[in-house]
Amino acid sequence: MEAEDAGQTYEFDQATAVEQGPTDGTYEMDVDAGWTVGPKPNGGYLLAAAARAGAAALAAAGSDHADPTSSTAHYLSAPDPGPAEIRTQVLRTGRTASQVRATIVQGDKACVDATFTMGTLTTDPDGPWWSNRVPFELPPIDECVKLPSSRGGDSMVVSIMDRSDLRLDPAVIGFATGQPSGRAELRGWISFADRRPVDALGLLFIVDAFPPATFELAQTGWVPTISLTAYVRAVPAPGPLRVRQAAQVVDGGRFDEICEVWDSRDRLVAQATQLAAIRIPEGLKPPAVRETRSY
Amino acid sequence: MEAEDAGQTYEFDQATAVEQGPTDGTYEMDVDAGWTVGPKPNGGYLLAAAARAGAAALAAAGSDHADPTSSTAHYLSAPDPGPAEIRTQVLRTGRTASQVRATIVQGDKACVDATFTMGTLTTDPDGPWWSNRVPFELPPIDECVKLPSSRGGDSMVVSIMDRSDLRLDPAVIGFATGQPSGRAELRGWISFADRRPVDALGLLFIVDAFPPATFELAQTGWVPTISLTAYVRAVPAPGPLRVRQAAQVVDGGRFDEICEVWDSRDRLVAQATQLAAIRIPEGLKPPAVRETRSY
Repeated sequence: MEAEDAGQTYEFDQATAVEQGPTDGTYEMDVDAGWTVGPKPNGGYLLAAAARAGAAALAAAGSDHADPTSSTAHYLSAPDPGPAEIRTQVLRTGRTASQVRATIVQGDKACVDATFTMGTLTTDPDGPWWSNRVPFELPPIDECVKLPSSRGGDSMVVSIMDRSDLRLDPAVIGFATGQPSGRAELRGWISFADRRPVDALGLLFIVDAFPPATFELAQTGWVPTISLTAYVRAVPAPGPLRVRQAAQVVDGGRFDEICEVWDSRDRLVAQATQLAAIRIPEGLKPPAVRETRSY
Repeated sequence: MEAEDAGQTYEFDQATAVEQGPTDGTYEMDVDAGWTVGPKPNGGYLLAAAARAGAAALAAAGSDHADPTSSTAHYLSAPDPGPAEIRTQVLRTGRTASQVRATIVQGDKACVDATFTMGTLTTDPDGPWWSNRVPFELPPIDECVKLPSSRGGDSMVVSIMDRSDLRLDPAVIGFATGQPSGRAELRGWISFADRRPVDALGLLFIVDAFPPATFELAQTGWVPTISLTAYVRAVPAPGPLRVRQAAQVVDGGRFDEICEVWDSRDRLVAQATQLAAIRIPEGLKPPAVRETRSY
């Protein structure tokens, strides 16, 4: 599972490392202060750590299924950086797929409850049998804008921006200067900052690494994820990945956001959807919808 | 939770009923032979039964959260019609949301593992604050085609077609006569056959009630769901619902399929995504892609 290059251990592997705990099926991790959004760890990072524990539990049960094909986490309570326990339960081991559950617990408080269907991902060199998705347009990486982890002053530090190299399409960075575009869509390039190759596990971080697409609608505070579901579809080819993240419906204090990840071969390697909470400031009018999806 | 009208108990409520089991947190259900696709129960039906047990467990823990805001099930092994146990675990009770897990077990074999974030759904009469989704075109219900539960001969009986009143857009029923359209999309109207009003719980069935959209690509056998995630966004207004189900990428023996459910007010009331397995017959060429989604 660990990506290593000439003995190098990458930041992502260190931060998601788990060790066998005192009882069967429990693992210990250190929630890393370097993978945070403000004071709290990023949701995709926690999902990846839970997946690593899940794969370890499957290995202990005799299964070599370690690629998270379908993953869902429900976020109950944000843990703090520091030690945490991951309690796993192997639900089933099968020939082509196995299922495992992993719960991140800190101080006896359940923080993240995740369930995985895992397998062994192989990638058909011929590409998908059928697809109606096409990769989106994105300016060359050099023309895109790197988001800093902090904009200085008393602004929140987003430390995951130092762990990843995220470059946004200049068309979608209005929010950074207080001028949201009115389209709930972010697009950009992403790699791990230390060039760790992105594998199936890494994709669980990638699908939740971008800022919320609703930032292009309105300046709101933190938008906590309620649940996150990710499908890993293929092993990414080397090189930076392209991510499109779009909110669809903001209703009743919640919004859904979809994410697509494309690799350098124009292969759709991951898809995700999340439901998150949003607090719209009293009386704030929504921007006009400039683009709708019709059929 | 039960929808009743002048003492009537609806089929859906009977089929998803759970009773307190012999130990705390366990419930007993009868997997109903009338909610099947071939010999096996429908996945959305099982998800709804698990949600009912989850809501009962939350009620026993002092929470009145009973509307499944975000639900995910992983399907491990299809149960048979007959008695089953649902083992629940309350993960957290909160002020605005609570989380609970429910596992359907039959003969000591875990069949469905589901996790729910539940709340109390209220619907803003003003509609969504912002949305880029628009309802799709659909011919009047009288011009749509009711799918029978059996086409006679030795064809598989799909008993959920007798529990629901499902009318497909005539443009997407090529598969029924062996002439798939080549577009992986189904659209139609749906109600419960006995006119039970569709509430949040009912939507968990609705999002998985349509035939697989891949039937419009190729004649394959059964496409077992690996996992199903559903977001309930608003309480549906009375009247038949409109459903659009579309497959996006068929790759590596798996496909993803999204679902949108709209009510009579043109409100998006539920969204779902599922990952399912598909066996493409050896050497079968895919139909040309006639429509792609660009950005």
